[in-house]
Amino acid sequence: MKTVRQLGEFRLIRELAKDFPLPPRSVRVGVGDDCAVLRTSDPGKYLLYTCDPVVEGVHFLPTTSAYRVGWKAMARNLSDIAAMGGLPRWAVVSLAVRPNTSVAYVKRLYTGLRAAATRFGCAIVGGDTTHVKHEPFIVVTLIGEVEKANLILRSGARPGDIVWVTGTLGGSRQGRHLSFIPRVTEARWLVGHFGIHSMIDLSDGLSNDLRRLIEANGSRISFEIQPSRVPIARTAHGNLQAALNDGEDFELLFTTSPKDTNALQQQWNRNFSIPLTPIGRVLLHAPGTVWLIQDNGTRHQLPAKGYDHFAGS
Amino acid sequence: MKTVRQLGEFRLIRELAKDFPLPPRSVRVGVGDDCAVLRTSDPGKYLLYTCDPVVEGVHFLPTTSAYRVGWKAMARNLSDIAAMGGLPRWAVVSLAVRPNTSVAYVKRLYTGLRAAATRFGCAIVGGDTTHVKHEPFIVVTLIGEVEKANLILRSGARPGDIVWVTGTLGGSRQGRHLSFIPRVTEARWLVGHFGIHSMIDLSDGLSNDLRRLIEANGSRISFEIQPSRVPIARTAHGNLQAALNDGEDFELLFTTSPKDTNALQQQWNRNFSIPLTPIGRVLLHAPGTVWLIQDNGTRHQLPAKGYDHFAGS
Repeated sequence: MKTVRQLGEFRLIRELAKDFPLPPRSVRVGVGDDCAVLRTSDPGKYLLYTCDPVVEGVHFLPTTSAYRVGWKAMARNLSDIAAMGGLPRWAVVSLAVRPNTSVAYVKRLYTGLRAAATRFGCAIVGGDTTHVKHEPFIVVTLIGEVEKANLILRSGARPGDIVWVTGTLGGSRQGRHLSFIPRVTEARWLVGHFGIHSMIDLSDGLSNDLRRLIEANGSRISFEIQPSRVPIARTAHGNLQAALNDGEDFELLFTTSPKDTNALQQQWNRNFSIPLTPIGRVLLHAPGTVWLIQDNGTRHQLPAKGYDHFAGS
Repeated sequence: MKTVRQLGEFRLIRELAKDFPLPPRSVRVGVGDDCAVLRTSDPGKYLLYTCDPVVEGVHFLPTTSAYRVGWKAMARNLSDIAAMGGLPRWAVVSLAVRPNTSVAYVKRLYTGLRAAATRFGCAIVGGDTTHVKHEPFIVVTLIGEVEKANLILRSGARPGDIVWVTGTLGGSRQGRHLSFIPRVTEARWLVGHFGIHSMIDLSDGLSNDLRRLIEANGSRISFEIQPSRVPIARTAHGNLQAALNDGEDFELLFTTSPKDTNALQQQWNRNFSIPLTPIGRVLLHAPGTVWLIQDNGTRHQLPAKGYDHFAGS
């Protein structure tokens, strides 16, 4: 009898998705992107819909500040809305704490939730609380909106596309996973000014998330990544493996036509203080592979090493 | 330093709600009803939005069938949509299990989730998984829709209204909490055929949920309940205390104008096999109180004894 640890998180989700019936017409995108995309009676917009659990011992420690726990629980979901090109609108929160938790702790946690939500125009409109004996958790669910023309999926990468990342990678373990700024503003600017072909937020490590883009493209593409170009967080002290494999960077990874490269880089630098870096290209060669290409031209395959929730700890 | 156990669940939520900023205009109803009610660009409809955590040791046992756990996690939320007069549309699921959980268990749990969702026309469109060391949990979030004319709030009860309950109460501990049918069909029929003034689903026990209706009405009303009329589940063997105080009945509690009493009872009996029972009246006398009135005319106040998640175990 296979356990979820043996199968791993990604294969578990794939396995479960097999049993799902064909989604109704109202579902433009179901399982398999950063958010579900829903059709409503509004002809110009889609609803975006996502939820994300945050658990003590997995995503935060008993000693983590309650404010930071709340911030992270909300910001992870905001990042998923950003990855689709959308704007967050409404959140509901499920919270489970031990009965001996102080009311002050819960209030500080909510202050963190609200701070992240309010910063990006999102309202917390409901939720429910319960108790646990051992591991507190928070599940935030978000509804966002996106104009149909601005929706960006994982599946749109085209051969020849340039691969970009915002910010720097690999700093999550030094505390950034608790205080990151979801790239909602940057994503809205990108979809408003350039033709973004595909986008994902980096939640499980660059090496895994590149594979998710490949999968979303039916494994018909490959990536060529230049490790010398990958922007490493200062706190990661040049640790390329951390930048490639650690999860919870929550930066945007996206692809654009190569003809936009100069204009995008210039206009980005005029508008934002965080870096935007081209780190490689989308190829057709050996579909399904992520190639690392050194500056001297040698290449080898990048193994998937990012975070798996069932194997990780 | 006060703990959440000392404060209790209802007062905790009230305490948290104090810190919430004024909701934006898009929020017709925020915290304080079975669902949040959201305005979109559709002039004829509202979105309904709710989430509910289900935790091992609180809502189910390690020995509970995985199918039943999934059914319950979905059905609780369906019941919240029903209580607003709406139709469930889209679900997302956050699932946390121990790494040594069998894949077969998770698949059966999803079969239960899907069975409940599909029965009421709801699609599971996404979600996320993670692991826990101790207590598995499932959080289902639902989006529903309701025509503006059909929206029923907790706050609409009027003095003189008749108080009704569907089905029978008090059978949850004998297993019904795992297999109940959310009253989506009945609620849709009710809002389509009668002027329902206020409605709630019975999740925390009749005595507590009556108080929630009182609170939603600004404590300006009281209830007079005839215990001899309260329909007790056969499995509760005449235990009135179970029918008044045990949670997780997930029947509908609603109020209507007394002039509808006969027509409602007759047409209900023609359409449904589960009972519909008038159990009392809405009063103005001693606002904030739930009165129990015996058949001989004596009355006393009903103490709140329903389930509190932080005190209950």
